[in-house]
Amino acid sequence: MPKTRESARANLENLYRIFTVPEAPESTLGAIDQAITANVAGFLQTHIVALERSLDEIETDFSSSVIPENPTFVSEYTEFVREKLVAQSVHTAAPGFIGHMTSALPYFMLPLSRIMTALNQNLVKVETSKAFTPMERQVLAMLHRLVYREDEDFYERWIHDSRNALGAFCSGGTIANLTALWAARNRLFAPQGDFRGIAQEGLVRSLNHMGCEGLAVLVSRRGHYSLGKAVDLLAIGRDNLVLIETDEKNRIDMAKLREKCRRLQDENIRPLSLVGIAGTTETGNIDPLDAMADLALELDCHFHVDAAWGGPTLFSESHRHLLDGISHADSVTMDAHKQLYVPMGAGMVVFKDPTALSAIEHHAAYILRHGSKDLGSHTLEGSRPGKAMLVHAGLSIIGRKGYELLIDMGIARAATFAGMIDRHPDFELTSEPELNILTYRYCPQRVREKLAWATAEQCAEINDLLDQVNQLLQKYQREAGKTFVSRTRLRVARYGRELTVLRAVLANPLTSDEILGAVLAEQGEIVKQAELQALVQQIEALCAGMADPPACAAGP
Amino acid sequence: MPKTRESARANLENLYRIFTVPEAPESTLGAIDQAITANVAGFLQTHIVALERSLDEIETDFSSSVIPENPTFVSEYTEFVREKLVAQSVHTAAPGFIGHMTSALPYFMLPLSRIMTALNQNLVKVETSKAFTPMERQVLAMLHRLVYREDEDFYERWIHDSRNALGAFCSGGTIANLTALWAARNRLFAPQGDFRGIAQEGLVRSLNHMGCEGLAVLVSRRGHYSLGKAVDLLAIGRDNLVLIETDEKNRIDMAKLREKCRRLQDENIRPLSLVGIAGTTETGNIDPLDAMADLALELDCHFHVDAAWGGPTLFSESHRHLLDGISHADSVTMDAHKQLYVPMGAGMVVFKDPTALSAIEHHAAYILRHGSKDLGSHTLEGSRPGKAMLVHAGLSIIGRKGYELLIDMGIARAATFAGMIDRHPDFELTSEPELNILTYRYCPQRVREKLAWATAEQCAEINDLLDQVNQLLQKYQREAGKTFVSRTRLRVARYGRELTVLRAVLANPLTSDEILGAVLAEQGEIVKQAELQALVQQIEALCAGMADPPACAAGP
Repeated sequence: MPKTRESARANLENLYRIFTVPEAPESTLGAIDQAITANVAGFLQTHIVALERSLDEIETDFSSSVIPENPTFVSEYTEFVREKLVAQSVHTAAPGFIGHMTSALPYFMLPLSRIMTALNQNLVKVETSKAFTPMERQVLAMLHRLVYREDEDFYERWIHDSRNALGAFCSGGTIANLTALWAARNRLFAPQGDFRGIAQEGLVRSLNHMGCEGLAVLVSRRGHYSLGKAVDLLAIGRDNLVLIETDEKNRIDMAKLREKCRRLQDENIRPLSLVGIAGTTETGNIDPLDAMADLALELDCHFHVDAAWGGPTLFSESHRHLLDGISHADSVTMDAHKQLYVPMGAGMVVFKDPTALSAIEHHAAYILRHGSKDLGSHTLEGSRPGKAMLVHAGLSIIGRKGYELLIDMGIARAATFAGMIDRHPDFELTSEPELNILTYRYCPQRVREKLAWATAEQCAEINDLLDQVNQLLQKYQREAGKTFVSRTRLRVARYGRELTVLRAVLANPLTSDEILGAVLAEQGEIVKQAELQALVQQIEALCAGMADPPACAAGP
Repeated sequence: MPKTRESARANLENLYRIFTVPEAPESTLGAIDQAITANVAGFLQTHIVALERSLDEIETDFSSSVIPENPTFVSEYTEFVREKLVAQSVHTAAPGFIGHMTSALPYFMLPLSRIMTALNQNLVKVETSKAFTPMERQVLAMLHRLVYREDEDFYERWIHDSRNALGAFCSGGTIANLTALWAARNRLFAPQGDFRGIAQEGLVRSLNHMGCEGLAVLVSRRGHYSLGKAVDLLAIGRDNLVLIETDEKNRIDMAKLREKCRRLQDENIRPLSLVGIAGTTETGNIDPLDAMADLALELDCHFHVDAAWGGPTLFSESHRHLLDGISHADSVTMDAHKQLYVPMGAGMVVFKDPTALSAIEHHAAYILRHGSKDLGSHTLEGSRPGKAMLVHAGLSIIGRKGYELLIDMGIARAATFAGMIDRHPDFELTSEPELNILTYRYCPQRVREKLAWATAEQCAEINDLLDQVNQLLQKYQREAGKTFVSRTRLRVARYGRELTVLRAVLANPLTSDEILGAVLAEQGEIVKQAELQALVQQIEALCAGMADPPACAAGP
């Protein structure tokens, strides 16, 4: 049938075309591409509309589960992307978007990302990555050195050692934390005599071999939720992720940690790892790493530091001391897509001992052969993109001093914002910033005064209402789309309970003091809405009806 | 000190600039960016030099472990990228690069990737991804439907269900396979009465609760190495990843699988999952999925299909029958960065039962709150980029029929290449292509004839020498940088042993028959090199000295 054959040939030609012919500059996609190239910030400002459409409504544009039968023109698809996807995205780079750990990107990340994408290297093996392999090893060595400050000889010896890796490049901090605990577990149950190690024999035989009942991972209550996933995956069980209380500054309580370790030992449960946090996700606080390192040494257990957020504080000469003790950690997680300002999807874990990752080493006949420099033999993930290039670019172009400036600015800005909140009659700081993260809530001065003298019951009632106000406040602010803070539940020592609080992350260098003022001003306006005022009036009624004494149990 | 203050201000201004000022088109980076935009293939051809520098040499460009103290100009860094990185990369998109599972990318993937990068959404939660969340859910539903073909009502019910997810989007197939087995393990040990489930209590108590000695995962010898990592991580142990022999077509031997399952049950070891392969990594073969599904049902165990490579065969009306039975799988892995032609770093796992992923559900106070539609509550990874956008683009722009054409072409091209090898006097096919992957080796016709009648000892000696020839052949071809095949060790039934074989993956639509001819021609030339000829002469001497009878033990 010549007709069919002709159409088949036409299809074939179209197919070749999409693999070879680039987009014409005057095409829709070409135009968008140009617009982003010329001015990312402007493009995002113009195209991410403030107009809030509800998620239900947006879902209607993504509701078909049928894969389109026939090809679509690129221009037509591009229109869809612009109207339905870009326009309904979150402007994570906006300087008023201070609620999560996403920031503006240095502009050079975009063209460099394109180069990375076009090269489409696969870091699992040298055969598909070539120079990207030594480059990733270099990036890992640089981060290792930032943390551990070993000498030149050390790095010369290990940086390109084919049998080892100073760390693992990952899709993010979750995989990094998991890799650290995986390596720790497998090192604890390393092959010995007839016992062939946990990797081979599994957990049950390993515990029998060691003669212990179970394993535990200890971290403060502020530990990242990825640790819960890790103990689940590693079959230790969430029961054995032991959460230790924190002090009033959201740092692990060392006395309670020691006490808990003692009790675990009595139960014949072996501490697999202590996990210190350098920059808690919710409040940006740093555990006493030095003391934790000492305890880990005493217990002969692994010490992991989750510095996904706070690691880059090490760039700052004036603030690096906050992380003292990190160089005694056996492993450290750092996220590049956070304070290294790399696009989403780049985490790392480095190990003090350059042979540590051999505990999870694996090989395959067609790649990852013994003695090859393939990075895939020491990573949890298999095929991986060349994201390390963007870390390399950041470290090279911004430099240590540039990152120092970014870190210092963020910390200073958080202190400024804390001051603004402190002076504001309607807001209350619920955690002091140690780095560049703080939490606060709507709670007028006059209510705070009453809370100080209220009964426990009155406190509970008022705080419950305040929780509702703050939840709605955050919701309406997000929906208005002008500025954004996040919210969480946080135990606040002076109230002896968990509260709903607003959370600000000050990592975007474009966030000015004016914008911070605008965030508070907008929140002040939102509280005036009828729905919130109804709650505020209930609170005020409660306050008005309150006797002055007796002192509240949780008062100051 | 006004001097310092002035330089601090200058630094600050530079810092603002890198976050706001785009690259001028006439700058070095701008020019490279333009060159890639205008003609990716041309750019890659011009800049990825064929000249082989050894890895040791390349490492010297990436040998400093010190993070540069001062900022570098973007233009200077860009020169470095061009000369030291791009020039020393692997041209994975070259049509003669048929050794691994990387291919040319459709051109529209590049500008769309830039949009994705500029938006920098984080899929872990709706607050940082908005429309990307329903889009990713849609992509998962489309792939689910491709595999399971449920009806419209089913997808309407589940696609955007806030408590569930039809699958998980991952950084790649390894995480996808791990997620599948994790969910399978946690479903097997789901909470029941006083037992709070394995996620909470860990493996030891779970096995006690169930009254069994251990768990096993069963897969053919051709199973991907990610499964070894999965059983290690999940604490089942590599001893309990049971590798079943394959038939002469590299498919799992069902009789041996049944037999093994029986024996495990006698030992009170519970099969956690059977894993079927739809497109083995090394040979592209497909297990008898229907029979495996029946057996899994009989054993009441999970049935996972690793279709990372072969899944998109479902697009093809003429070849989809090869995967019959896949719709009975409890979970299926598919890689988008393979035969969906998406840039590196995109895998997926879909689950037949839309509630299956609740077995690994997790929450956190500041995100992933109960009842939210945050995708992060059902994924192993935390923060993730919006890669699903590129899958959405591929499915929309290329369409089912376009992918069908790509699949059909690859399978046809593999058959063509197999024919060329079969007719060639110097090469021997070591696995027939079922999809678009085949293996072969250098082994001249006259040697093959001798091998058919040689003693076991003579066979071994000759095959050892042939292994060396093929290993060097692959090495020198890779180093010459014109064309590329990979190599692996593969058990070949007619020789009753493992051989070193060359492996070709025919997924690049730009790979023509002429290029395939050139690959063989280049290999013929390489064999003429003195080092290889020395080996060939040894083989010929052995052949010459051979008596005709008696028949070789492993002869035909």
